Amino acid sequence: MRVLYHVPLSPFSRKVRMALKEKGLPFDLRLENVWERRVEFLKINPAGKVPVLVEADGTVIADSVAITEYLQEVQPQPDLLGGTPAQRAETRRLVAWFDGKMHEEATVNLVGEKVMRRFLGRGEPDSATVRAGLANIRMHLDYVAFLVERRTWLAGDKFSLADIAAAAQFSCIDYIGDVPWGHQEAAREWYARVKSRPSFRPILDDRVPGLKPAGHYDDLDF
Amino acid sequence: MRVLYHVPLSPFSRKVRMALKEKGLPFDLRLENVWERRVEFLKINPAGKVPVLVEADGTVIADSVAITEYLQEVQPQPDLLGGTPAQRAETRRLVAWFDGKMHEEATVNLVGEKVMRRFLGRGEPDSATVRAGLANIRMHLDYVAFLVERRTWLAGDKFSLADIAAAAQFSCIDYIGDVPWGHQEAAREWYARVKSRPSFRPILDDRVPGLKPAGHYDDLDF
Repeated sequence: MRVLYHVPLSPFSRKVRMALKEKGLPFDLRLENVWERRVEFLKINPAGKVPVLVEADGTVIADSVAITEYLQEVQPQPDLLGGTPAQRAETRRLVAWFDGKMHEEATVNLVGEKVMRRFLGRGEPDSATVRAGLANIRMHLDYVAFLVERRTWLAGDKFSLADIAAAAQFSCIDYIGDVPWGHQEAAREWYARVKSRPSFRPILDDRVPGLKPAGHYDDLDF
Repeated sequence: MRVLYHVPLSPFSRKVRMALKEKGLPFDLRLENVWERRVEFLKINPAGKVPVLVEADGTVIADSVAITEYLQEVQPQPDLLGGTPAQRAETRRLVAWFDGKMHEEATVNLVGEKVMRRFLGRGEPDSATVRAGLANIRMHLDYVAFLVERRTWLAGDKFSLADIAAAAQFSCIDYIGDVPWGHQEAAREWYARVKSRPSFRPILDDRVPGLKPAGHYDDLDF
C-alpha cells in the first residue's frame, strides 16, 4: 500500500492528502515527528521534511510540489492543474503564492509561533511575530476574495491544486482560530465550498494530540 | 518578443534565464527593481517578485517553478525534467531542495545580508546570520558532492533543472566570493561543467552596478 508520511498541522502534508483523495488514490497515513530526525526517515528524505510519499513498489517521492506533479502524471483524472499551458501556469503560480508567500507571511508566524515553538520547548510565542501574522492573513483573505469574485475557483472555472494549496494553509491557521473569516465574506464562502468536499473531511477530523481545535473548525457552517 | 523581468542577483531569475537559453528560446531581459513596487509591475505579478515571463501574445507567467514547467510544456526539447514520472519527481525534489532549503539556509543569509540589506539601506550585515550562511553552504556543497559521486548530473544521467536550480543559487553566492570550493572537489568539478555551458555565459557576464564580483567568478578554471 502507498504510504504518506505526514504531520497533522503541516500544510504541505494536508495539500498532498487532499490531492490523493481527490484523485481517489488509497494510502496509509503515517505520522512522522520530523523534529526527532529519525535516521530511517532521513535516508528516504535527506531534507528531513514531510510530506514524503512511498509507493507500493518502494518509489520514494519527496516534496509536496514534486508529489502533486507526480500524482497528476500517474493519475491524470480528475485534472487538478488545467487544460492548457497558460492555465496550468496560473494554477502553479497560485500554488507558489500559498505554499510560499502565505506560508511564510501567515502560517509560520501564527502556527509556527503558537504551536510549534511551544511544542518544541522554545518558549512563548513572540507577540510581534504573531501580530505580523494576524495582519498578513487579512491580506491573503483579500486576495482569495479578489480571485473568487472574478472566478468560480481560485485558478479559474475548475477546482484545482490552487484551491487545495490555499485551503491547506488556511485550515492549519483555522485550527488555532486565527482566521478572521468575517473580514471577507467571499473568502469565507469559498472556504465553505472547499470544506464540503469529501477530500477535506479526513483533514477536518484529524486532531493534534493535546491541542483542541477552535470551536467552529470542522463546522461546514461557520 | 518574449520578455523576462529579472534582478541580476535573483537566483530564481537566473534559473529561468538558463532554462530559456538551454531550450533555445529568445527573450529580452528587463531589469525590474522589485523593491520599488512599481504599480505596472504589481499589476502583472501581484506577488511583486521576479522572475516574470511575458510572452509575445501578452500571456504572463509568474513564479520560477510555474515558468520552468511552462517552458518544458511549450518547448519539450531539450528535456530538462526526465523521461519517467519517478525521474521527473527526483528532478523536482532537487529543484525544491535548492530553491527552498539552500536558498533559505545559505543564499538569503549571505547574499541577502551582505548585498540586499546594505543596498536597501537597512544597515550592516548581521554577523551571526552570515556565519550561519557560511556554515550551511558547506552542507550544500557536501550534498552536491554526494550526488555527483553517484550520478553524472545532480538528478541522474542527464543535465536537468536540478543542475540549473543549484547553479543559480551557487552562482549568486559565488558572485560575492562566499563559496568555499576547496571544501568539496567533486562539487567544484560539477560547477566547472555547468559554467562551461553556453547557457550560463550571459549570467557570468552580467554585472551588478557598483558591486564587482569575486576575482574567480567568471573563470572557467577556478
